[in-house]
Amino acid sequence: MMVLNNLNNKRIILGSNSPRRHFLLKGLDLKFDVIVPDIDEVFPENLKADEICKYLSIKKSEALEKHLDKNTIIITADTIVWLNNKLINKPINFDDAFKMLQQLSNNIHEVYTGVTIKSINKTITFTAKSKVHFNKLDNNEINYYLKKYQPFDKAGSYGIQEWIGYIGIKKIEGSFYNVMGLPVSKLYNKLKHF
Amino acid sequence: MMVLNNLNNKRIILGSNSPRRHFLLKGLDLKFDVIVPDIDEVFPENLKADEICKYLSIKKSEALEKHLDKNTIIITADTIVWLNNKLINKPINFDDAFKMLQQLSNNIHEVYTGVTIKSINKTITFTAKSKVHFNKLDNNEINYYLKKYQPFDKAGSYGIQEWIGYIGIKKIEGSFYNVMGLPVSKLYNKLKHF
Repeated sequence: MMVLNNLNNKRIILGSNSPRRHFLLKGLDLKFDVIVPDIDEVFPENLKADEICKYLSIKKSEALEKHLDKNTIIITADTIVWLNNKLINKPINFDDAFKMLQQLSNNIHEVYTGVTIKSINKTITFTAKSKVHFNKLDNNEINYYLKKYQPFDKAGSYGIQEWIGYIGIKKIEGSFYNVMGLPVSKLYNKLKHF
Repeated sequence: MMVLNNLNNKRIILGSNSPRRHFLLKGLDLKFDVIVPDIDEVFPENLKADEICKYLSIKKSEALEKHLDKNTIIITADTIVWLNNKLINKPINFDDAFKMLQQLSNNIHEVYTGVTIKSINKTITFTAKSKVHFNKLDNNEINYYLKKYQPFDKAGSYGIQEWIGYIGIKKIEGSFYNVMGLPVSKLYNKLKHF
């Protein structure tokens, strides 16, 4: 049984290294292969928020173009954390991660994901935005989280699906799965009409 | 390492049969035992929304009172789905489940969880509310979900962490984990000051 009949006999490639994105795309009951694009995550300085992740998702998609044939669809995505009109990157070390979580504490930030779907004759790109409201985190809690969960590969130094997301997040406006790295509901609807 | 020092040397009992609640309480990095209260989920007719799940969480808590001693804390919870000022129960069969999902489709409903924390000399009860915005679901999608996922033990006939939650939910206002059955962020904060 298959719901997205238009994708029958298509090969889907997910261009992402993220275990969370693999998990989420599986949740759509789709079969896919993973090929990780090799790009520098560099973007023009004047870009803001959703423009950055849109730009990077297209860049990743273009890096995989050579794998396209008429039966293949490539999905790529990029997620960013945006606070006070500034990009929050992955932390460079423990102290940097500590400072990031102190900034997010008792504050509201935005998470944007840009997604590109590409076939041999069509490309679409869309973005999703979620607002995340953090509780006040005390230093003891930040310290516990960083030591136990080591979120140093994560933009903003946190994973919403981990302990910090359980204790620290008061409220989300928008898609939870977008904060995890892939706005699956929007993606499903775009694939349905692709 | 332990963050909730006030719970050192306490035995926590989770009074719930729900695998989702077990999973969520584990996510708070707490150790606990499970004892399932034996109650009829009956409540006074005049109760509405949050009053119902509050009432039932207290009823479950009282059914476990005999397990209390000075080192024990009991946590119980009840989650309800509320649509157009009416309670949406667990479905009685496939057709009933089908109708429920048709009602939720292209609509906004509320999910309330009532939680009671009880020790030998203190009881607190609180509730959390989330608004869930469903996309339009077509009959093909509803049929696929019900046949594959068999959500007949679930209030409202859906699990937010399953396929239907991936494809069907546009937006949540409030806590995602509350919709899964336990508002962990609020619970953590109540435990911290219990």
